[in-house]
Amino acid sequence: MTKSVVVLLSGGLDSTTLAHIARKDIGKTGKIYPLSFLYGQNHVYEITRARITAEKLGGELRIVAVGLNSVCQSALTSGAQAVPEAGGSDEIPPTWVPQRNAIFLSLAFAYAETVEADAVYIGVNAVDYSGYPDCRPEFTQAMEKALNLASKRFVTEGRGIGLLTPLIKLKKTEIIEKGLSLGVNYADTWSCYKGPNPKGEACGVCDSCAIRLKAFADLGQVDPLKYEARSEGK
Amino acid sequence: MTKSVVVLLSGGLDSTTLAHIARKDIGKTGKIYPLSFLYGQNHVYEITRARITAEKLGGELRIVAVGLNSVCQSALTSGAQAVPEAGGSDEIPPTWVPQRNAIFLSLAFAYAETVEADAVYIGVNAVDYSGYPDCRPEFTQAMEKALNLASKRFVTEGRGIGLLTPLIKLKKTEIIEKGLSLGVNYADTWSCYKGPNPKGEACGVCDSCAIRLKAFADLGQVDPLKYEARSEGK
Repeated sequence: MTKSVVVLLSGGLDSTTLAHIARKDIGKTGKIYPLSFLYGQNHVYEITRARITAEKLGGELRIVAVGLNSVCQSALTSGAQAVPEAGGSDEIPPTWVPQRNAIFLSLAFAYAETVEADAVYIGVNAVDYSGYPDCRPEFTQAMEKALNLASKRFVTEGRGIGLLTPLIKLKKTEIIEKGLSLGVNYADTWSCYKGPNPKGEACGVCDSCAIRLKAFADLGQVDPLKYEARSEGK
Repeated sequence: MTKSVVVLLSGGLDSTTLAHIARKDIGKTGKIYPLSFLYGQNHVYEITRARITAEKLGGELRIVAVGLNSVCQSALTSGAQAVPEAGGSDEIPPTWVPQRNAIFLSLAFAYAETVEADAVYIGVNAVDYSGYPDCRPEFTQAMEKALNLASKRFVTEGRGIGLLTPLIKLKKTEIIEKGLSLGVNYADTWSCYKGPNPKGEACGVCDSCAIRLKAFADLGQVDPLKYEARSEGK
């Protein structure tokens, strides 16, 4: 049976690995529907990377605009707040965008219903999760249940749309190992909370860069992205 | 204690009644945050009505754009399909927009977190619900649970944001009676799936017009809206 899946693909390290996992799961004959969002994030450079991965995996990137700036403020969606550097506390950080994953998953399930996909893949991660409550399994399981209760296929045929989170319990190092084993070229990805500098480099010091650089260093690998600074020694 | 609430206000009959119920619930000192969506619906005339009600109730209408057309097709969001007339079957109708309420509720909870509201009001109705699965209490209860699991306030303080559905078990006639008792002027509302004709009239024959007109007729009341035709005799 041909499987057909929607993959939330931001173009970052996690979601790019996720898309390769999804392709492996469905095999060469499966259909993949990569989905990105324009939600007022400070830069949209990731999306250029998402398109590269979508094409490599035989899917066409679909981009949905959502006016998240109309309902919330965050360091990720407002130029007014600075993006924090690594080394913070256990609190929910200022990069938190309220209900971002709920909004993305609702749109992804709408798309899955439209293209008759069997499942939605999201690259949430509860280990290196930066304190975001919507990256926990309690949340994704509750959303899967709720969204299926509003799914035409589930309500009329009893067949639910699956919500798959294959990265949720992996450490960042395990995600990268998994990706390398699947042939991911991490130069195709972007993680930095800031956009590229004029040289095309990532900052290397924000939370997101620091976590990534440390994971590559822990693996004894070199991150193929170009960085302005490299904080893995922190 | 001052209560503060987000109200999903489309400008239709149900949500306008809902907004008046919310204002009564929170009293004169409560803060009301009416929220509308631009999601590619065939007409946006309702929003002009939503603004009238928002102002009457002392709130400022917030409008959020969502590119729903990028992920789904529906008679409500695509000019290609005709809006059906009344008298259909028990099946999910072609006006169904997949996950519309999930998307709206996710954005409403994001807004509630931002403005520190205690509750979100949505005017779903399981009686005259036109066959939409996302108007059933099973769905709204599951969404309330899921969205609170991603809510900063619930996760850090244990205080959930309520999802209130005061219309869910009311017949259309009961909704109108409730609204009239609260002083709603139904000329401030719009229900027709089509926009107004050049005379400013509603069609009077689509599902939405027919349900509304029948309810007013059953109550022995005259709907103050202007109609091109009046299908209440059907």
